[in-house]
Amino acid sequence: MLKVGLVGMGYWGPNLARVLNQSPKCEFVAACDLNPRNLDKITRQYPTVVGYRDFDAFLQSDVQAVVIATPISTHYELAKAALLAGKHVFVEKPIADAGSKARKLVELANKTQHTLFVGHTFIYSPPVIKVKQLIDSGDLGDIHYVSLSRVNLGLYQSDVDVVWDLAVHDVSILLYWLGEKPIRGAAFGRACVQSEKRDVAFLWLEFPSGIIAHNEISWLSPQKMRRTCVVGSKRMVVYDDMDSAEKVKVYDRGVNVKEPSNFGEFQLTYRMGDMYAPYLENAEPLLREIEHFVACCEQGVIPTTSGEFGAQVVETLEMVNRTDVASWNTSTMSSVGAQL
Amino acid sequence: MLKVGLVGMGYWGPNLARVLNQSPKCEFVAACDLNPRNLDKITRQYPTVVGYRDFDAFLQSDVQAVVIATPISTHYELAKAALLAGKHVFVEKPIADAGSKARKLVELANKTQHTLFVGHTFIYSPPVIKVKQLIDSGDLGDIHYVSLSRVNLGLYQSDVDVVWDLAVHDVSILLYWLGEKPIRGAAFGRACVQSEKRDVAFLWLEFPSGIIAHNEISWLSPQKMRRTCVVGSKRMVVYDDMDSAEKVKVYDRGVNVKEPSNFGEFQLTYRMGDMYAPYLENAEPLLREIEHFVACCEQGVIPTTSGEFGAQVVETLEMVNRTDVASWNTSTMSSVGAQL
Amino acid sequence: MLKVGLVGMGYWGPNLARVLNQSPKCEFVAACDLNPRNLDKITRQYPTVVGYRDFDAFLQSDVQAVVIATPISTHYELAKAALLAGKHVFVEKPIADAGSKARKLVELANKTQHTLFVGHTFIYSPPVIKVKQLIDSGDLGDIHYVSLSRVNLGLYQSDVDVVWDLAVHDVSILLYWLGEKPIRGAAFGRACVQSEKRDVAFLWLEFPSGIIAHNEISWLSPQKMRRTCVVGSKRMVVYDDMDSAEKVKVYDRGVNVKEPSNFGEFQLTYRMGDMYAPYLENAEPLLREIEHFVACCEQGVIPTTSGEFGAQVVETLEMVNRTDVASWNTSTMSSVGAQL
Amino acid sequence: MLKVGLVGMGYWGPNLARVLNQSPKCEFVAACDLNPRNLDKITRQYPTVVGYRDFDAFLQSDVQAVVIATPISTHYELAKAALLAGKHVFVEKPIADAGSKARKLVELANKTQHTLFVGHTFIYSPPVIKVKQLIDSGDLGDIHYVSLSRVNLGLYQSDVDVVWDLAVHDVSILLYWLGEKPIRGAAFGRACVQSEKRDVAFLWLEFPSGIIAHNEISWLSPQKMRRTCVVGSKRMVVYDDMDSAEKVKVYDRGVNVKEPSNFGEFQLTYRMGDMYAPYLENAEPLLREIEHFVACCEQGVIPTTSGEFGAQVVETLEMVNRTDVASWNTSTMSSVGAQL
Repeated sequence: MLKVGLVGMGYWGPNLARVLNQSPKCEFVAACDLNPRNLDKITRQYPTVVGYRDFDAFLQSDVQAVVIATPISTHYELAKAALLAGKHVFVEKPIADAGSKARKLVELANKTQHTLFVGHTFIYSPPVIKVKQLIDSGDLGDIHYVSLSRVNLGLYQSDVDVVWDLAVHDVSILLYWLGEKPIRGAAFGRACVQSEKRDVAFLWLEFPSGIIAHNEISWLSPQKMRRTCVVGSKRMVVYDDMDSAEKVKVYDRGVNVKEPSNFGEFQLTYRMGDMYAPYLENAEPLLREIEHFVACCEQGVIPTTSGEFGAQVVETLEMVNRTDVASWNTSTMSSVGAQL
Repeated sequence: MLKVGLVGMGYWGPNLARVLNQSPKCEFVAACDLNPRNLDKITRQYPTVVGYRDFDAFLQSDVQAVVIATPISTHYELAKAALLAGKHVFVEKPIADAGSKARKLVELANKTQHTLFVGHTFIYSPPVIKVKQLIDSGDLGDIHYVSLSRVNLGLYQSDVDVVWDLAVHDVSILLYWLGEKPIRGAAFGRACVQSEKRDVAFLWLEFPSGIIAHNEISWLSPQKMRRTCVVGSKRMVVYDDMDSAEKVKVYDRGVNVKEPSNFGEFQLTYRMGDMYAPYLENAEPLLREIEHFVACCEQGVIPTTSGEFGAQVVETLEMVNRTDVASWNTSTMSSVGAQL
Repeated sequence: MLKVGLVGMGYWGPNLARVLNQSPKCEFVAACDLNPRNLDKITRQYPTVVGYRDFDAFLQSDVQAVVIATPISTHYELAKAALLAGKHVFVEKPIADAGSKARKLVELANKTQHTLFVGHTFIYSPPVIKVKQLIDSGDLGDIHYVSLSRVNLGLYQSDVDVVWDLAVHDVSILLYWLGEKPIRGAAFGRACVQSEKRDVAFLWLEFPSGIIAHNEISWLSPQKMRRTCVVGSKRMVVYDDMDSAEKVKVYDRGVNVKEPSNFGEFQLTYRMGDMYAPYLENAEPLLREIEHFVACCEQGVIPTTSGEFGAQVVETLEMVNRTDVASWNTSTMSSVGAQL
Repeated sequence: MLKVGLVGMGYWGPNLARVLNQSPKCEFVAACDLNPRNLDKITRQYPTVVGYRDFDAFLQSDVQAVVIATPISTHYELAKAALLAGKHVFVEKPIADAGSKARKLVELANKTQHTLFVGHTFIYSPPVIKVKQLIDSGDLGDIHYVSLSRVNLGLYQSDVDVVWDLAVHDVSILLYWLGEKPIRGAAFGRACVQSEKRDVAFLWLEFPSGIIAHNEISWLSPQKMRRTCVVGSKRMVVYDDMDSAEKVKVYDRGVNVKEPSNFGEFQLTYRMGDMYAPYLENAEPLLREIEHFVACCEQGVIPTTSGEFGAQVVETLEMVNRTDVASWNTSTMSSVGAQL
């Protein structure tokens, strides 16, 4: 059974520890953290886990796969070292704090022939998977546009702004659903509370197929919203993660264009049909994610959230940031949106 | 009592006829429409109203004030003629299909010393007025940003796209609330159903004070949303027009920044207080609007929704349209957002 | 075409006048009201309608069908006189203020071979009809129970208490859906604001098939609720009239009982399937109701809301009132619930 | 520090174990369960806890307080033995399966001068406490009535019916809020899925002050509802536990009765004011409950959910069950509602 070690026991690490311990598909054998208190807590809770304060010593243990849940700025160096040490690597989202670093990790994983996996957990959640199935089956027709809102009050992150903290989720969902990478994008935001860090932003994205997307993200909003609307030519879907009863609703609604019989105008008719909310199984995304990672390591399968996938997410964030409102008054820009 | 005549009995005109007839503040004496069937219907329902098929004859009657509810492309010519004939003018929103025409009407009204009023009805609705009071009182603190969503399925307009049809409402609300005109703006949209006409768009606006705003508008959305969120440094407000019980909710929530005592980081603390939903009186906006128009005509007061106000709305729409996504690939643009 | 006359232009009458005028299926020819102002208003709005202050004169006109929208206490006398004058009769709900009077009207209508119709408008509304279809099709399986809530603040009625004002709606819906009349019932309520008149009540009903029902009604409640839940052995339905988007939701949910394989306990398994909200056409119940009345008069068909149906509604209200809490301390009662 | 032992590690016990371990106010020293697997799990998770399979041995340990979380039918015997052994006792709700047994426990605790505490956890939850404060402060005026709904699909209990499983919560909340015990009550329900056990029921209660209450409970309902409405003469409150954002809403609404100036009718006017949702702290009820228990043991204070309180809850359930619909046809009953 795959021996897995975990690096980073801060905010998110303990959740990964729980599922690593819970899953019968892998063996949780080692943990690494600079902070001895964090380390103690984990090794006390999981007595069979060996604790390491030194990352090199950790890498020299018999762990076959390394799960990295440290601050974003450290992802690149830790993942690189783990790959070079011949380990499979699971790195929390985003894969790195720059697209160029992400690309280097992808190349390195190709060279070492080991799994490089990015922890975009939403991709393993039942509602996100259900919408993906609806899109791929053709039930929705051609996708016209996607609108995503992810706002609430807090939690401010100390190391990144709201785009890197929240849009990373929505961009990963978009790339997964649409299976393509945006060719143009822009961001518009404001640093309201702290002078250097945007806490609200609005993103525009355009995809090669012509689909457009919009993403509203905020740490400074009175009501919590986790709402996504996918509008297709045949059907429309609303995925509302705050709706505890029906997270995904499929609307049999649309507009039909009738060819004008003679020189008249185009006629539009509205199609108003039933709505249905498919039953969603009650699976834990994090457990699913870890077990998919283990399966990829053992069978050499390419992960749904591969290093390549994670790199595209980071590149998209970089692209939209190149055209933030702060640069509107720099007349040197030659186009509204940045292009990849 | 002010004698009022109405031009245009199509989709919206009958509503204006109803309140003109209902109000004790004015006398509804004349109606004008090219279509004899529309005209007949009105004069039968309001027997004291004289019907005119000819606009010139209508202008030569004893009406003192003219209410124009015709297609947008005709607003300019009809309003101009009415002003030149020495009438007060109420013209439906938007005031004209171009900022330059709007400006000419404003100048003309100044010259003739008559009231020029634009029918931005939302400005007279209880929840919009309540939010204005909250902003002006300082209860919300400094405004950080405003996010507005106005989406549903249909109704497609034959003469204008979704920006001119729906954003006109939100832009008027923004200008009223903030009391300033945006200095930068851009739009991003797509013509999904008909090749020439956008049915979904996302607008960005930036105001001189630094406030930013976002507006999502769509004719192609499965759920109807009429939601506006105003985030201030002290309090936050959600105005949801689809909530039949509590349209305005005021949240005593925010983020406080504590000065770092020594070389440490800034500390953020969240303020989570009560929410309250002020009682809103049950007044009809349209009736209020007409009675404000009548009062302006009679007392020479400047309307809340003056010609100047309506011109600024049209100029804002023109500004955002200058930077639509369609122009992203034209490398001749020198800046992301258009500037006034 | 059937010539129809309307009696009573108070609170509800003008709505009936509007649809009588609007429908192409009948001719609205006469109106009767004691109050000359009410009468004037109607005859001015509908100039072809002849106004009568005297009911006998009204009955001697050429009206073939009489629509009665007067206070409840007058229903019996007016309906009786109209039937005796050889007219078809539409009487607003409830048909009379006592079951015995309702029965006399039913007998009289049988004798005169004219239509006796009760204005239970909800029976003609799209969501109520949709639930009826779901029940009758067997889609819901056997019905276990129905729970109905109808509460809000106001409007207090001057002539009746909350049971006669609000439960009349829910009881009519229940009788229509289930096609049977309750054999037992009781009410529990309180007169909170006025000493003699209950403004909140809870009703229990039991039907011959074993189905039970509960009805919560109140004039004294802060949130408006119009919610009905029908629980069947195969599926469950929620009909929420306050939900502007999806009034009827069908849940493929339930509990299955597995026979114990050996001496063990019965095993229960939950069935959690999709939910769907059928599209409901946007028809006006009042217009449908009036046109069904006209069709019944002309074709001799028995109305869905016949005199017999209306009498059963009144008898049910009388039954539950016989066991109100006020009588709990009378030790002469021999059973908890009243029996018909 | 108080040494606490826990009996019963089934469905609910592990939650109690967690807070006993978490609280700095007590020492979690012993656990007792017949099932060695349950016991192993707890002692492995909390290595300092000593496990006992034998209840007598457990009682002979140095535990000073015993927390009982076993099936209802065993509450009486275990609590009795613990009290006789000189321990303080926390017993899960309901205190016993019969009022007579509850009374014996109360007497025994009085005699032994030890704390007898019943685990009615809702009484320690922030929204329930907030409503209690609103009632006690007089802000709501005189309470007219309370309506409580607690319905969802499952979980069927194997040992009790829906009244003992769900109404126990609502009755405890009612007794806590109103500070009085009902003098009359009745239940109406149906055993839909299993022939012997009611899975839906409707309860009526009347209190000495004249307040009435209604409770709808069901294991067989498609939507989850946890809604309580308290109607007072001055204000009204809705406590909706399913609302993740605002659980308690206070409405400044009501009806005023104006004395008739002369022989006229009473005039009613509606008061429609603001709504507000007080901020509720994010405290865990279970932890609060355990810490209140510890304080009572140590300081000899009478618990909010004392044995007396728990006995009144059980007596209320017994009272309403005496008049279930099943007994409607027994003509020997002399009154509609049972009296205590």
